[in-house]
Amino acid sequence: MMKVVVIGAAGAVGKAVVEQLGQRHEIVTVGATSGQYQADIADIAQVRAVFAQIGRVDAVVVAAGSLHFAPLEGFTPEQFYVGLNSKLMGQVNVALVAQEYLNDGGSITLTSGIVADEPIRNGVSATMVNSAVEGFARAAAIELPRGLRINAVSPTVLEESMGSYGPFFIGFEPVPARRAALAYARSVDGAQTGQVYRAWGGSV
Amino acid sequence: MMKVVVIGAAGAVGKAVVEQLGQRHEIVTVGATSGQYQADIADIAQVRAVFAQIGRVDAVVVAAGSLHFAPLEGFTPEQFYVGLNSKLMGQVNVALVAQEYLNDGGSITLTSGIVADEPIRNGVSATMVNSAVEGFARAAAIELPRGLRINAVSPTVLEESMGSYGPFFIGFEPVPARRAALAYARSVDGAQTGQVYRAWGGSV
Ligand SMILES: NC(=O)c1ccc[n+]([C@@H]2O[C@H](COP(=O)([O-])OP(=O)(O)OC[C@H]3O[C@@H](n4cnc5c(N)ncnc54)[C@H](OP(=O)(O)O)[C@@H]3O)[C@@H](O)[C@H]2O)c1
Ligand SMILES: NC(=O)c1ccc[n+]([C@@H]2O[C@H](COP(=O)([O-])OP(=O)(O)OC[C@H]3O[C@@H](n4cnc5c(N)ncnc54)[C@H](OP(=O)(O)O)[C@@H]3O)[C@@H](O)[C@H]2O)c1
Repeated sequence: MMKVVVIGAAGAVGKAVVEQLGQRHEIVTVGATSGQYQADIADIAQVRAVFAQIGRVDAVVVAAGSLHFAPLEGFTPEQFYVGLNSKLMGQVNVALVAQEYLNDGGSITLTSGIVADEPIRNGVSATMVNSAVEGFARAAAIELPRGLRINAVSPTVLEESMGSYGPFFIGFEPVPARRAALAYARSVDGAQTGQVYRAWGGSV
Repeated sequence: MMKVVVIGAAGAVGKAVVEQLGQRHEIVTVGATSGQYQADIADIAQVRAVFAQIGRVDAVVVAAGSLHFAPLEGFTPEQFYVGLNSKLMGQVNVALVAQEYLNDGGSITLTSGIVADEPIRNGVSATMVNSAVEGFARAAAIELPRGLRINAVSPTVLEESMGSYGPFFIGFEPVPARRAALAYARSVDGAQTGQVYRAWGGSV
C-alpha cells in the first residue's frame, strides 16, 4: 500500500484515478478549491505549503491544469500563457516540489492529452502545452535521483466530458474515465520511467 | 526569388541559413542587437514594430531564442520561464505576427533541437521547450489560412558550437552549420507543412 497524492482529485479524470488507485492505496486529495488540501499549482509556494503539510509520500499524480482553446487567428500571447502557467508550469511545479517529498523509488505521473499527437482546430495551445508536458517527463526521468520515476498519461477525450468537449472531438472515440484511469495505475504501480502512456484505442 | 526574413541571422545557425537561402532569395536580417532590424522576439510589440517596417514577405525563419541549462535538482520555475519566454513564446510571437505579413503560400520555419528527442543531463528545459515548439508547429499548420505553411527544424549540435556545447553532447555527431541549413531550405523552398525536419545523421 502506497500513500498517493492526487492533485485534481475531484475532476473528471481525477475522480476515476482516485477510484482506481484507492482500491490498493491510501489517497490524499488536492484541488484548487476542493479536496483534503487546496493549492493553485501555478504558484509553487502554494504547492510547497501543501506538501509541507502532507509530508512524505510514495506517488504523486496530477490531473489538473487549464488550457485556452480558440482559433489560431486572434490567439494572443496572454492566451498561450494560460496553459503555460497552469497546465505546464503547474505540473512542473508539482514535480519540482514532489522530488523532495517522495520516498525512494516513488513516482510522479503528469497529464498531457491526445491533442499532443492529434492536432485539432482551436487546439494550438493544447498541442503545444501537452507536447511540453511530455517532453518535461521524458527529460526529467533521466535526472531524477533515488530511483524516482516520472511519466505522463495522455488521455483521449473522456465519455464524461463529451458534453463540453464533444464538438472539438468529432471522429475521436471517447473512453470512459474508468479506462483512462488504468494508464495512471500502470504508471504508479509499474516500474517504467520517462514514458507517455497513451490512454486511447487499444492501448489503454 | 522570395523575400525571406531570417531572425537570428548573425548566429551560428542563422549565418548558415542566410548563406544557403541567400543563393536564391532576398534576405532580410533581424537580430537582438545585430542585423538590418532589431527586436527582442520575447516581446510581441517589438516583433510587430519590425514587421511593420519590413512589410510583406514570402518566408520567415527563426533561429533565435535562449534556454537555461542546469541540473534538474535546483531548477527553478524562473529558470524554466527563460526558455518559455524566449525560445518558445519568442518564436510563437513571430509566427502570430508573420501570419499577417506573409504572402499567400508563404512559410514560417521555427527552430527546435535534437534534445527534444534525445534528453541530456541539464537539458530538462531544452527538451520541454523544443517539444513545445514542435507541437506548436504541428498544430498551427492545420489552422493557417491562405496556404501558409509552418515547420520546425531540429538541428543536432553544430560543429561550430562544440566549443561551448561539446561537453553536453558527448557521443552526438555534430553537423556543420552548412548541412543543418539544408533543412531550412527544405522547409522554405519545399511544400510540406506541420513537419519537423531533423537535421542530423542521414536525414539532413
Ligand atoms: N476531461 C477530458 O476529456 C480530458 C482529456 C484529456 C486530457 N485531459 C486533461 O486532464 C486534466 C484534468 O482534466 P479534467 O477534465 O479532469 O478537469 P476538471 O474536471 O475540470 O477537474 C480539474 C481538477 O483539477 C483541479 N484544478 C484545476 N486547476 C487547478 C490548479 N490551478 N491548481 C490545483 N488544482 C486545480 C480542480 O480543482 P477543484 O475541484 O477545486 O475545482 C479539479 O479537481 C487537464 O489537464 C485536462 O487537460 C482531460
Ligand atoms: N548552435 C547549436 O549547436 C544549436 C543546435 C540545436 C539548436 N540550436 C538552436 O538554434 C537557435 C539559434 O542558436 P545559435 O547557436 O545559432 O545561437 P547564437 O549563435 O547565440 O545566435 C543567436 C542569434 O539570435 C539572436 N537572438 C537571440 N536572442 C534573441 C531574441 N530574444 N530576439 C531576437 N533575436 C535574438 C541573436 O541576435 P544578436 O546577433 O543581436 O545577438 C543572434 O543573431 C537556438 O534556439 C538554439 O537553441 C542551436
